[in-house]
Amino acid sequence: MLLALDVMGGDNAPLETCAGAVMACERFADLELALVGDTEAVRPLLEKAPASVRTRLHLVHAEEVITMDEPPAVAVRKKRHSSLRIAMQMVRSGEAQGCVSAGSTGAIVAGGVLVVGRIPGIERPGLGVPLPAVDRISMLIDIGATVRCKPLNLYQFALMGDVYMRKIIGVESPSIGLLSNGQEEVKGDELIIEAREFFRKSRLNFIGNVEGGAIPFGAADVVVCEGLTGNILLKFIEGTGEAMYSLVREEISRRFLAKVGMLFMIPMLKDMWARFNYEETGGTPLLGVNGAVIKAHGRSRARAICGAVGVAREFVMKRGFETIAQELAEGVIRE
Amino acid sequence: MLLALDVMGGDNAPLETCAGAVMACERFADLELALVGDTEAVRPLLEKAPASVRTRLHLVHAEEVITMDEPPAVAVRKKRHSSLRIAMQMVRSGEAQGCVSAGSTGAIVAGGVLVVGRIPGIERPGLGVPLPAVDRISMLIDIGATVRCKPLNLYQFALMGDVYMRKIIGVESPSIGLLSNGQEEVKGDELIIEAREFFRKSRLNFIGNVEGGAIPFGAADVVVCEGLTGNILLKFIEGTGEAMYSLVREEISRRFLAKVGMLFMIPMLKDMWARFNYEETGGTPLLGVNGAVIKAHGRSRARAICGAVGVAREFVMKRGFETIAQELAEGVIRE
Repeated sequence: MLLALDVMGGDNAPLETCAGAVMACERFADLELALVGDTEAVRPLLEKAPASVRTRLHLVHAEEVITMDEPPAVAVRKKRHSSLRIAMQMVRSGEAQGCVSAGSTGAIVAGGVLVVGRIPGIERPGLGVPLPAVDRISMLIDIGATVRCKPLNLYQFALMGDVYMRKIIGVESPSIGLLSNGQEEVKGDELIIEAREFFRKSRLNFIGNVEGGAIPFGAADVVVCEGLTGNILLKFIEGTGEAMYSLVREEISRRFLAKVGMLFMIPMLKDMWARFNYEETGGTPLLGVNGAVIKAHGRSRARAICGAVGVAREFVMKRGFETIAQELAEGVIRE
Repeated sequence: MLLALDVMGGDNAPLETCAGAVMACERFADLELALVGDTEAVRPLLEKAPASVRTRLHLVHAEEVITMDEPPAVAVRKKRHSSLRIAMQMVRSGEAQGCVSAGSTGAIVAGGVLVVGRIPGIERPGLGVPLPAVDRISMLIDIGATVRCKPLNLYQFALMGDVYMRKIIGVESPSIGLLSNGQEEVKGDELIIEAREFFRKSRLNFIGNVEGGAIPFGAADVVVCEGLTGNILLKFIEGTGEAMYSLVREEISRRFLAKVGMLFMIPMLKDMWARFNYEETGGTPLLGVNGAVIKAHGRSRARAICGAVGVAREFVMKRGFETIAQELAEGVIRE
């Protein structure tokens, strides 16, 4: 399987993206990667890769890079030689079966729509992030592809999230919740109330409104919301983790007893960290486009890039986007 | 100062609301409280109160209670003898200078608008919750009074949050941030972009968009958002706290070393808990109505009720709503 990796995207590119590529090829023997980026910068970074890996890494030159502060749609349109655009064109042409980038979310979404193209019938794509909850991994969709939504958009996010959880994660009959300001029927605004009607009439395992407070407890397998809300929530989660970490570290440095206590707790904290640090493990699928397009976190290091490549590989193997297209066309999950 | 307390509101009413009333009168020598509720149920709960407190607690009978599952506006209109409505009528008539309830958020907002009345010029009220961040207390407004907003609503939340932080909390020139899916100017939807123009033209210390991830770091003194977003975020914070607590407790019970470590860390965790447990300390002011209307958390116990009464008292003493009305009328903060 050949996947395209935008090695210029993200805060730690191309050093960590290349290291991640090597790691992924070591992990997956069937994998070939097209490393799209500045060939001169990339080549030296692969020198130490084992020969068995090196032969599966193919350099594809890209002269331009889309940066974080560019208006995404404009950048994707204008920078025809950007690493992200070339990686996506390889998906569109069928040369690569999927692509991964740690670049700007907006550019990945714009590229997904403009270059890779939407699945017929899908009005807007959705970015679905797998969030660890107490008893499961929930998918929060959308986290920023579609800032404001129509009821149809929310409904299609639910359909796509349902397929993802069934086909990729292997959850039977995923429960679908609509994020709202209260569980009760009377809660929500017109958008939520109209979307609820769509959900109800479908064959989805729709469990109604879910509150923000229920997400960490694994209220639903798929939690559906507008991109604005999902984005704010996701970034808040990240920020809270960082703030708590720095606060606890500061407190501990000032307290002898706490320092001792911390030593005893390190194994437990390491386990919990591994369980909840979604940045390290997850890639965020852009659902609704004609291929496996996976966004890695902007701050990804090698392990996270490798993880995102793994997500793309699985999405291809389990025929993620084909299933969405098929079920949509057959009306299996849409009535 | 006489404040009205809806002793029937909240999960632990009237036991904890009454205990909170006693606690508040012990703490504030100048305070008198009208305890609005089922007199028969309330009276025995005050038997053990010291005489100096008992004389400052006045029973006001209310035959009805508004429950959590009633449509709020309908309940406020129909239940003319409900404890919440009577407490609010006391504010409207000037008999009480403010009121506190741990009842349904929707009913408090509806009562604030329908019974207490809006400040002239304020289109929609906003609930502003003080959120502890790394280096300050930020006010998140709105957390559910106005589910969806117009740009003017967001702007008026900012004005009211600005007054609250200056007059009540004592922050000089509070920084105002608009919650969005990215710091950059290009981020946000039409609502956010239009609101930004309002903010810019005002004399507010507007610092631009803030991301969800910046909130825990104290990005701004006042963080403005739609009620839907604020509500989801606030409940998510609560849920995360609870989920982490139960997870850590479970992990610790299974690990001997962690148990030992925890013992050493208890003093630190207690301090941090005291700092971040806003439920215990905060009351949420309903800004934009003609009086001090303070919402306590639905799960409030005595200490939290006492805290919310303290917030109401301060709001009255520092002339919170009068200042909002005055600055709005004078155009001091609105141009």
